Amino acid sequence: MSGLNAFFRPSGCAVLGASRDEQKAGHQILKNMIRASRCGGDAVYPVNPAGDEVLGRKSYRTISEIPGQVELVIWAVPGNFTESVLADMRARQEERGDLRAVVVVAAGFSETGSREGVRREEMLVSCCREMGVRVLGPNCVGVIDTSSGLDTTFILGTELLDGGVSFVSQSGAMGAWLVESWSSEIPPVGFNKFISVGNMSDVSIIEMLDYLRDDPETSTVGIYLEGYEQGRRLAECLRSLSAEKPVVALKGGKTEQGARAARSHTGSLAGRDRVYDGVLKQVGVCRAHSVSELSASVQAFDRLPAPAGRRVFILTQAGGPGIYTADLLMSGGGVERARISDSTRRQLRDILPPFASICEPEGHADITAAATARQHAEAAEAILRDDGVDSLILVTVPVTFVPAEDIASELLDVVHALRKDGIDKPLLPVLLAGRPVAGGVRMLDEGGVMTFETPDDAAGALLKITDYYARGRG
Amino acid sequence: MSGLNAFFRPSGCAVLGASRDEQKAGHQILKNMIRASRCGGDAVYPVNPAGDEVLGRKSYRTISEIPGQVELVIWAVPGNFTESVLADMRARQEERGDLRAVVVVAAGFSETGSREGVRREEMLVSCCREMGVRVLGPNCVGVIDTSSGLDTTFILGTELLDGGVSFVSQSGAMGAWLVESWSSEIPPVGFNKFISVGNMSDVSIIEMLDYLRDDPETSTVGIYLEGYEQGRRLAECLRSLSAEKPVVALKGGKTEQGARAARSHTGSLAGRDRVYDGVLKQVGVCRAHSVSELSASVQAFDRLPAPAGRRVFILTQAGGPGIYTADLLMSGGGVERARISDSTRRQLRDILPPFASICEPEGHADITAAATARQHAEAAEAILRDDGVDSLILVTVPVTFVPAEDIASELLDVVHALRKDGIDKPLLPVLLAGRPVAGGVRMLDEGGVMTFETPDDAAGALLKITDYYARGRG
Repeated sequence: MSGLNAFFRPSGCAVLGASRDEQKAGHQILKNMIRASRCGGDAVYPVNPAGDEVLGRKSYRTISEIPGQVELVIWAVPGNFTESVLADMRARQEERGDLRAVVVVAAGFSETGSREGVRREEMLVSCCREMGVRVLGPNCVGVIDTSSGLDTTFILGTELLDGGVSFVSQSGAMGAWLVESWSSEIPPVGFNKFISVGNMSDVSIIEMLDYLRDDPETSTVGIYLEGYEQGRRLAECLRSLSAEKPVVALKGGKTEQGARAARSHTGSLAGRDRVYDGVLKQVGVCRAHSVSELSASVQAFDRLPAPAGRRVFILTQAGGPGIYTADLLMSGGGVERARISDSTRRQLRDILPPFASICEPEGHADITAAATARQHAEAAEAILRDDGVDSLILVTVPVTFVPAEDIASELLDVVHALRKDGIDKPLLPVLLAGRPVAGGVRMLDEGGVMTFETPDDAAGALLKITDYYARGRG
Repeated sequence: MSGLNAFFRPSGCAVLGASRDEQKAGHQILKNMIRASRCGGDAVYPVNPAGDEVLGRKSYRTISEIPGQVELVIWAVPGNFTESVLADMRARQEERGDLRAVVVVAAGFSETGSREGVRREEMLVSCCREMGVRVLGPNCVGVIDTSSGLDTTFILGTELLDGGVSFVSQSGAMGAWLVESWSSEIPPVGFNKFISVGNMSDVSIIEMLDYLRDDPETSTVGIYLEGYEQGRRLAECLRSLSAEKPVVALKGGKTEQGARAARSHTGSLAGRDRVYDGVLKQVGVCRAHSVSELSASVQAFDRLPAPAGRRVFILTQAGGPGIYTADLLMSGGGVERARISDSTRRQLRDILPPFASICEPEGHADITAAATARQHAEAAEAILRDDGVDSLILVTVPVTFVPAEDIASELLDVVHALRKDGIDKPLLPVLLAGRPVAGGVRMLDEGGVMTFETPDDAAGALLKITDYYARGRG
């Protein structure tokens, strides 16, 4: 068993600073831990100096007092309590010996740059090492694991839905942003693990990435990176990780201004951006340049089949948005326009409204606003059955006479028919826009067909997955 | 009175093809016209061959039969009825002489590239010219005017809220996408006019842009452009427009693939992208490269005060997202980091939590997750009062102990206090993310402080408005 398992599947958790005061981080952490827990949080123990009952459960004045097993401590009391917390942990460890890991959510350590903060962090690490306890943080928001049912963070409104994406972040807030966005989508998007590494006083980003490499629940890894002193070790870790599963990284501190801010944030030397760019490419990591690109790409890696090649077809019911999509795809590079066979062309001509524009240019068909839901779906099917096509982006602006729900239902039928015949190519539907298409989007996503909110997201994600698998094939 | 006024403030409208069948465009158009109309759509007349009552109002078999005044005809019957519709219009015009304008939503004209379609369009235009009727389209979705209360489109769910932005589009679907997105925001975003020009058989994009230049209700113009044969005339029109008000354009057909698709979409010669880029710059038009950038920029021009200079300060409660914002701003170019005075620095040090990072680097302060709502606001106020600052982006990931609503309420107080003292600088709050911050976002927007969904939107918009006003000052 890996030494890090206690961060994800601990037998028993103590929440230090689990206050009755709703305005305290420790209160929200306890709430999240209970809500996430499969068994109602029976093994989640509030600890606070008053020993107050919190959220209907008995509290303890110290960790030592807790009768049940405690493998994980979540530390949400301020940094200036370091000595007393460590004394309490040591007392427990000497008597029971069950502590394995501590998530230090508290700030006030080396990230402050103060002598006192640095000293505290050194004491924390050396004490925990002696006790055989691993430290995540300090100055982190900790861990969410949707499959084990654990949430040590104070992030609001997380939907604990399963998924294959795990995300490691050098910024707790970047993680909160992503997780809150996924949870706010309709329908909400799941993920597997979220890990905020904070100051990396003991457990480094490298150890966590190695853990995810070997984690069978994680299919795809997303990273927000600011910098790491041992660049060569990080590169080796990323190379070995991306050999196993797709990795998408967003790098903070690209500009001089950003890099300086990163230095005062996590003390990271952001390094020359071009160097990072080259290294990430070399080790097989996809680089995202925006949070939405990162988010769409990791979800696409998890949820779409691998395209067999670079040949993309754009099927659009809407002229302008189709052109916009073509611009996005072609200026990104790395994909080719698909060339469909003469028989597929004839088929499209038979299926589609008389004024549809087919293969003008190659790899592009505008079925016009006159197209019915059935025509959307039949055209998509004909194109996906063509051997010259590796993936399909479908752009549509559903109108009252062709409701999004009808398009969704017809498309789901096509996807199922294709799968029966062993055809499973990436199909990326973009339904524009907003509330009028929410019903159709929900149907597709719940039916197992990932949708994209914008052509930007779809094109960004398709460029990434196409390139990744094409490189994989050499 | 401009010859185009009847497209926006007609006395009486006939809706040709206003069917009882909810699956027909004409049904939704009638619904939109009635919903938009301030007076319950009393002067909106359904016309259909059966003379059926539709949506509870009396229908007419022909336009000629309508007893009231009819200045505008909305044409939602298929193109192959062209001759009979024109005959009906001519009969009306000879008898009553009240028709002024027709919005031809129908397709099946020159955009099909067929001889028949081209012939029909020629007949349409020459007939209408003889009658003194202006033609918008064909193959367009027409016009929305939130201030007069008119919506000739079949776009779903438009919130008819006032705003200063008008948008002209060579693609109806791009307009539908934008309008549906604005209407789906929380709270919904208003606009002034939306105009889809379609085939431009008579009224060109140039005439519409000239109209908006002189329109006192339009403060800012957004454009989706594919191409225009008379490039020099378009450039002159844009120059004279952007001398009056800010203009942001998104160009479709940037890549060869996109340009070819544009050619079959609107028959436009998209032209070399670099040429467009140069011309747009020369004539003072801001160029957006994505729909979200276009959308955020036009709204920012409408709703934010003009920055007096290029000096931006980033105030962040969240390390990673603050660094991400710095990267976005600084890689965009055209802004400078603000340098605050020593006294403002001291003030920030007094206001903020002990571990806040102030002006490391210049123009950047990380107030840390320990900052209260009051500290957010006091810091923002101190920075906005500093003479060295022209604009402020505020990035925060509200947590349970600092709810988004508290931050919003404190910020609103500050904005009011500053305005009282005559200080009105752009303040761009980014509250991350999703449902947990919806309440705060709504409070700010309703309180007159525009919020941004992502740092990308805020940075994109701030770069555009800063550059526009800095150029204006020479």
